[in-house]
Amino acid sequence: MNILFIMYDQLRFDYLSCAGHPHLHTPNFDRVAAMGVRFTNAYVQSPICGASRMSFYTGRYVSSHGAAWNGFPLRVGEHTLGDHLRDTGMDCWLIGKTHMKADKEGMKRLGLAPDSVIGARQVECGFDVWIRDDGLWGSGPDGFYDEKRSPYNEYLKSKGYEGQNPWADFANAGINEDGNIASGWMFANADKPANIREKDSETPWLTARTVDFIEAQSGPWCAHVSYIKPHWPYIVPAPYHDMYGLNHVPAASRHEVERDDPHPVYAAYMENRISSAFQRDDVRQKVIPAYMGLIKQCDDQLGVLLDHLEKTGRLKDTMIVLTSDHGDYLGDHWLGEKDLFHDPSVKIPMIVYDPRPEADGTRGTTCDALVESIDLAPTFVEAAGGKVPDHILEGRSLLPWLHGEKPEWREFAVSEFDFSPTPQAVKLGLEPRDCRLFMVFDGRYKLMHAEGGFRPMLFDLKHDPDEFHDLAKETGHRAEIDRLYAMLAEWGRRCAQRVTRSDDDIKGMRGRSIRKGILPFLVDGSEVPDELTEHYRGPAPQKHTGG
Amino acid sequence: MNILFIMYDQLRFDYLSCAGHPHLHTPNFDRVAAMGVRFTNAYVQSPICGASRMSFYTGRYVSSHGAAWNGFPLRVGEHTLGDHLRDTGMDCWLIGKTHMKADKEGMKRLGLAPDSVIGARQVECGFDVWIRDDGLWGSGPDGFYDEKRSPYNEYLKSKGYEGQNPWADFANAGINEDGNIASGWMFANADKPANIREKDSETPWLTARTVDFIEAQSGPWCAHVSYIKPHWPYIVPAPYHDMYGLNHVPAASRHEVERDDPHPVYAAYMENRISSAFQRDDVRQKVIPAYMGLIKQCDDQLGVLLDHLEKTGRLKDTMIVLTSDHGDYLGDHWLGEKDLFHDPSVKIPMIVYDPRPEADGTRGTTCDALVESIDLAPTFVEAAGGKVPDHILEGRSLLPWLHGEKPEWREFAVSEFDFSPTPQAVKLGLEPRDCRLFMVFDGRYKLMHAEGGFRPMLFDLKHDPDEFHDLAKETGHRAEIDRLYAMLAEWGRRCAQRVTRSDDDIKGMRGRSIRKGILPFLVDGSEVPDELTEHYRGPAPQKHTGG
Repeated sequence: MNILFIMYDQLRFDYLSCAGHPHLHTPNFDRVAAMGVRFTNAYVQSPICGASRMSFYTGRYVSSHGAAWNGFPLRVGEHTLGDHLRDTGMDCWLIGKTHMKADKEGMKRLGLAPDSVIGARQVECGFDVWIRDDGLWGSGPDGFYDEKRSPYNEYLKSKGYEGQNPWADFANAGINEDGNIASGWMFANADKPANIREKDSETPWLTARTVDFIEAQSGPWCAHVSYIKPHWPYIVPAPYHDMYGLNHVPAASRHEVERDDPHPVYAAYMENRISSAFQRDDVRQKVIPAYMGLIKQCDDQLGVLLDHLEKTGRLKDTMIVLTSDHGDYLGDHWLGEKDLFHDPSVKIPMIVYDPRPEADGTRGTTCDALVESIDLAPTFVEAAGGKVPDHILEGRSLLPWLHGEKPEWREFAVSEFDFSPTPQAVKLGLEPRDCRLFMVFDGRYKLMHAEGGFRPMLFDLKHDPDEFHDLAKETGHRAEIDRLYAMLAEWGRRCAQRVTRSDDDIKGMRGRSIRKGILPFLVDGSEVPDELTEHYRGPAPQKHTGG
Repeated sequence: MNILFIMYDQLRFDYLSCAGHPHLHTPNFDRVAAMGVRFTNAYVQSPICGASRMSFYTGRYVSSHGAAWNGFPLRVGEHTLGDHLRDTGMDCWLIGKTHMKADKEGMKRLGLAPDSVIGARQVECGFDVWIRDDGLWGSGPDGFYDEKRSPYNEYLKSKGYEGQNPWADFANAGINEDGNIASGWMFANADKPANIREKDSETPWLTARTVDFIEAQSGPWCAHVSYIKPHWPYIVPAPYHDMYGLNHVPAASRHEVERDDPHPVYAAYMENRISSAFQRDDVRQKVIPAYMGLIKQCDDQLGVLLDHLEKTGRLKDTMIVLTSDHGDYLGDHWLGEKDLFHDPSVKIPMIVYDPRPEADGTRGTTCDALVESIDLAPTFVEAAGGKVPDHILEGRSLLPWLHGEKPEWREFAVSEFDFSPTPQAVKLGLEPRDCRLFMVFDGRYKLMHAEGGFRPMLFDLKHDPDEFHDLAKETGHRAEIDRLYAMLAEWGRRCAQRVTRSDDDIKGMRGRSIRKGILPFLVDGSEVPDELTEHYRGPAPQKHTGG
């Protein structure tokens, strides 16, 4: 079996027709949902690209792998999905974005050459690279945000798109009335068509690279196909730029009560530039149709992949996963972007198709178990026929759910957010180690704990599904707060770093040392088991004759 | 300045005359205490050799480095004291025992050759090896407990001690009435003189190697001189074997109330072989005088080192640390060995001499601050003139205390014990991840939390300094228990793995991305700072002319 692990960047859980979106029709996402299981309570380990992805790719919580924010290197030697899958005989390839930063200091300390096979995998988060492009080719007076080469920019140049950075000037820009560049960085331009042929834009380009990959494989393979879209800049080529309009823009899901004595960290986020922008109707009315168009394009390109798999017979032996690294507030809760723990940010789409007959009984169903993004790595290892190394991987395989079983499952999900490098940290005057947020969600109550001496936040999603009413502002919810804090404390004591000894190894160690002569605490030797007596009461050596 | 970091194995905090022992006179330990500061509340991160030492050598808690029990490999790439000291230009050498097991799997995964300089340091816990001998040369039908070579056994053979394992047959054995070997593994033989010349026994042998080392150095150096004694086997050569007798053996510090409804984990330890042995007066009467003799020999050999340093002028520029990896119950609390969290096991001697004038004001004093074994690594880095990498090292430098300052300090100490490979785990029917104990001590109250659904233990050392009365058996101490659990929860959320970004790095990242073209969330560009306007509203590129 192969694994097609597709990730969209910043795709909200509820912007799919199978998830109930009233205007956005996504027949190809729906098609996979009809073939597989759609998990309706899936959460990321951190609502920001880099940290979230490092959890997907290691199967470990953010506090376990340590790469807590964009650009925080993943420590050298951290086990990755690629390590585990290669142990089972399955290749693990990257096609697209990882947002991973290599631990150059650590590699230097260990003498790992980036151009060796081992070093190259360390640099690329354990993947073998078919193509990597992180898709954020911003450039300014200090140079490019991303120092790597951009295969996509190279592609555009080869197609005649001119300038140093066609990603910015064509794929992510329109043309204004004066015929000048209208940058997609600016929301005012979000309704313009990107100045690029649709088939040359980012999503079709990566789809074509994926078809190339599939045709070149003999298998078994796992391919992480990782699209940059519908991530900002919010601009999309024709015909997607005007498929949706004002009548498709939902009212922002926000409430005045949220601005009444808000949690200080939440308040700092409500006041930042992006949130201020998304609090404006004109911004939402320009951005959301573009965001929907980007998703519609993703759906059409998913159709291309599905048709190719079907045509080549690969649909019968390829597991397909559709997910995202986090959502997008789009003005809900007075916020833009992601970062905090309301569902529009921390909840993700998670659709899994298992082609094997064991999964026939669950096709087209939904599952509301509390799923975490770290559950995919063990799912893939088990799907590849391996034994899940659960002393390293902290997630749980989803295969039992896919095969109609009712496994014992976690009682709560945890997500984390480290905002130590952000303007909000400066505004709140916090030291880096106090800029850490933790979410504990038990399926009904969602607690946010903030380091740095702040009060928590608490929502009851049963009676307040929109998460407007922070119950921690009131008294009278001590019991729920204490219960969720006890869950967080239990999680804090988890066995996360005992990665060099499996449980089986440990059980095998029990009682071994006596057979290697470690005999402490014998009173007179009568305690030695009979079968060892001869050995330990054998013939005497000569007396000491040392000269 | 140089650093002489001396560790004794299984040396109780209170078996020194400077710590108030009524019978054991240790003038050389006392001499260092008179030159420096004796810390009277020093605790190990785990009361067992391997895990405790990995915390000393990494400056990190056991749950952070993951090497939770003897023989659990230290994960490849974990930062060590040697890494940090070499960054400051100071060498870091090993002379004696570390009990470290290399992460061979991890090294293979990263392609590290054990015979390369980098690989050799990975294998040896970051040390350069002057001499390594872990000092436990038990052998049985399954071979040697320790697979490495034994420089000490080689030394003994070169001196004419015969047989395959003279460590066992001479250094750790006496001769019985029939002229046969009387193994030191058996307490019944603890009163016999070891069948070896005193100068060839382990402690003088390692002292001589240390003198060789010091004479060979130009400096600056840090030397970890790590003695196996007074660790069992409990047998010592003449004249130390009969220096102490019955009148020097204190009554066991134990109480019937401890056997009344004991905590299940404590109960399992009270019932094991070693504890049953130490519950016998005849065993304590044979073992404790031998244990005292071993310590007396350590003190005499410390005198040899001090005299050598003084004679060569090194006493003026060498920091000296005397400590231990854990204690020894010796029958107290109905227990033998170490492992649990009563003071005789988890509390250690910690004497630090700083030769510099800044320390003149504190010479000969004691300090009752809550010290953890992980505090030594940052102390050494700072003493070596380096900046403490506090995103990696979890301890705190002791230099402020040595220099008469009153720093803000921790409110509680944490220790951990993983008993997953032990017979107690089998007896209690526990899975490996439930075999984990945590101690939280705030200077007065000591809480033990046990995973696996057990109740905690609680002691009030102010009113019960002997730790006989487990307050968690009663009701009415909820507030203290909750307060200590809150400390444990705070500790569980600590920032332990964010090791690739220092706080300074993070502060430096704040606000950088806009200068590299990441301009999300601009409404119309008017938000761009003036100095960037030209860049971001520069001349338009040609329109798309893509062919």
